[in-house]
Amino acid sequence: MENGLVGSEGEVTSRITIKGILSLIMESIEEGDGDGERKKRVISLGMGDPSAYSCFQPPDVAPQAVVETLQSDRFNGYSPTVGLPQARRAIAEYLSNDLPYKLSPDDVFITSGCTQAIDVVLSLLARPGANILLPRPGFPIYNLSASFRHLEVRHFDLLPERGWEVDLDGIESLADHNTVAIVIINPGNPCGNVYSEQHLKMIAEAAKKLRTLVIADEVYGHLAFGDTPFVPMGKYGSIAPVLTLGSLSKRWIVPGWRLGWLVTTDPSGLFRKPKVVERMTKYFDTLGGPATFIQAAVPRILEQTDETFFENTISILEHGLDICCSRIKDIPCLTCPQKPRGSMAMMVKLNLSLLEDISDDIDFCFKLAKEELVIILPGIAVGLKNWIRVTFAADSSSLEEGMGRIKSFCLRHAKQTGNM
Amino acid sequence: MENGLVGSEGEVTSRITIKGILSLIMESIEEGDGDGERKKRVISLGMGDPSAYSCFQPPDVAPQAVVETLQSDRFNGYSPTVGLPQARRAIAEYLSNDLPYKLSPDDVFITSGCTQAIDVVLSLLARPGANILLPRPGFPIYNLSASFRHLEVRHFDLLPERGWEVDLDGIESLADHNTVAIVIINPGNPCGNVYSEQHLKMIAEAAKKLRTLVIADEVYGHLAFGDTPFVPMGKYGSIAPVLTLGSLSKRWIVPGWRLGWLVTTDPSGLFRKPKVVERMTKYFDTLGGPATFIQAAVPRILEQTDETFFENTISILEHGLDICCSRIKDIPCLTCPQKPRGSMAMMVKLNLSLLEDISDDIDFCFKLAKEELVIILPGIAVGLKNWIRVTFAADSSSLEEGMGRIKSFCLRHAKQTGNM
Repeated sequence: MENGLVGSEGEVTSRITIKGILSLIMESIEEGDGDGERKKRVISLGMGDPSAYSCFQPPDVAPQAVVETLQSDRFNGYSPTVGLPQARRAIAEYLSNDLPYKLSPDDVFITSGCTQAIDVVLSLLARPGANILLPRPGFPIYNLSASFRHLEVRHFDLLPERGWEVDLDGIESLADHNTVAIVIINPGNPCGNVYSEQHLKMIAEAAKKLRTLVIADEVYGHLAFGDTPFVPMGKYGSIAPVLTLGSLSKRWIVPGWRLGWLVTTDPSGLFRKPKVVERMTKYFDTLGGPATFIQAAVPRILEQTDETFFENTISILEHGLDICCSRIKDIPCLTCPQKPRGSMAMMVKLNLSLLEDISDDIDFCFKLAKEELVIILPGIAVGLKNWIRVTFAADSSSLEEGMGRIKSFCLRHAKQTGNM
Repeated sequence: MENGLVGSEGEVTSRITIKGILSLIMESIEEGDGDGERKKRVISLGMGDPSAYSCFQPPDVAPQAVVETLQSDRFNGYSPTVGLPQARRAIAEYLSNDLPYKLSPDDVFITSGCTQAIDVVLSLLARPGANILLPRPGFPIYNLSASFRHLEVRHFDLLPERGWEVDLDGIESLADHNTVAIVIINPGNPCGNVYSEQHLKMIAEAAKKLRTLVIADEVYGHLAFGDTPFVPMGKYGSIAPVLTLGSLSKRWIVPGWRLGWLVTTDPSGLFRKPKVVERMTKYFDTLGGPATFIQAAVPRILEQTDETFFENTISILEHGLDICCSRIKDIPCLTCPQKPRGSMAMMVKLNLSLLEDISDDIDFCFKLAKEELVIILPGIAVGLKNWIRVTFAADSSSLEEGMGRIKSFCLRHAKQTGNM
């Protein structure tokens, strides 16, 4: 009987998750910390949770709005499972600002964060024999969800030398008539990519040619700070149907509030067919969804957050990124092929041939954690062996200190050359 | 491509949901309401959401605790996906009060309401060929979830003349080696049953004999007001493994807060095997879960809710139930085989032979809504044709007025007998 809970062999248990590997790294520090006083604080540049740093705080209006809806005593009851009408309307209006067409509240389905939106989409698309195209490097929750939903995963490459653009030729060779969707994460986690309008349009055209749809993960929407502005994939929803995923988590610095959305950005109306709407609605009846009073606060949060709040977040992120990039240039065994243009994370390549006793990215991260109390994510967790993912959403002193320790670590483990 | 979202034919679209049918009934009122001023208010005795009535309010400590954790700015970030440690610990302690053994915080997995707990359990148990035993009448989210998770459903009867006890012989004849679980809802929705210790023990023994486990849905836990006290199924977890589902929703009158739990009440430790724990933990990585600041408020809510609050709720429910039962006795075509002993709903049998022009329970409920603006749930939605489900979690004036209108309706549609 317990077989049911263990699942079919190898189904999921072999998969690496970001949280899983970071926990193991943390535990290894704690185990090794028995010999006397700890001299340094632990610096985590591993997780994508900016709220851990006091320089990132939600705008005042956000908790105020939630306190107001909670204390009104009007939102203790169930909301419709697809979402509270006023929250759906507000999200539709918010997203429509950047689209060439107007979304209807019916296009918006409210989820427990973007994580649940991912699982909902993959569950709804899964059918025997179906496959989905995921970016490599990517966000491992997609792989985990696909595995639980029995959806075959095929990986296309993101091209580091081209700003982590999608390998469109790769997509064509991977897809077949069982390909249910292509996943695009923009602004990108873990790469920090922000795609140009032209590239987004080419992705839509590739999807059209392959008669599939695009899942656009825009959880980092608007967190762009290079020359390339953020453009939502939904802009090209008339070329191929797009399902857009997003949340309050990153832009409003409230990842723990679990307020996300799944939006049918599809002016052709494929997703408005009664049978599709009925199936989606019933699926939502089986989900928990976010608290009603948090949903009720969404209109005020979206309408009343000051533009200066967003500008301030961007400026802290840009400053953090600059610290990381300039310090990395100074460390021979690390290279960043392209300075990120958005999101909160970047991929950094390890040159192991310059290091004495480091076997791979996992070894690098565990030894770094043990010796320097700095936590970063091994690239293998996001699909790229012998890279590392560095989160630059941290305060500048943590980043300066963390990068300094990484430099010390790399120098200490550097291969001795003939000159020395 | 859109086939993916429509799903395999007939998979789910034919299923009735409570919310779906109640919406149709509501719409039928609104459509028919074009001719002049509405004379009566709509009275809904259809949904199990007590927060719709002002006599049911959460205890003051609940919103206070949430405001405090929200305003502390310490809980805007992610929680572990299985739940915040202090909330897991508090729920373990709360449930342990009624068990002959002590739960560990690791036994507790926090979900977005009991709804998500149901879907999680069914997802984790599903495998090709598996079946699950559900009560009839029952709670239709189980059927919907099972359908999406490709889990075959087999129904056993609850026996009205025996206080809606489980038909244990029925269970034996339905089960086979592919039966992954038996679902028990106690206190019961839709029947208002509260099972004796002896009956719970017999269920555990039946599960043991069949080498399967028990899913104990205790979302109405402690809402018992007859002679039979509420006893958790987990008390017999040493006979057969039990997975207990619950939430703050009903007892604390906050269904919209979406704070539920799935608990492995299994002293034999089957669910503590590393592979089971690993699979469950990874599954939770794909879910959204409730807001971190709501989770952080759970310890204070569980510890500081005054006993008088619970007593007051019980007393309002008992009073509401008394109104319904006494009025029903007065309506010839309605019978209630057993006065409920708990929860918030009761099943009432329609005697259609006493009615002139009512074809079935659906016809009864639609005509009642149209003529009297009273919403009740057709029994078919919970698996019992030609019964109705009446929610007695409402204020007394709504219940008096609603039952009065139901009586008028029944008299107006009564078959003329020879005597008249």
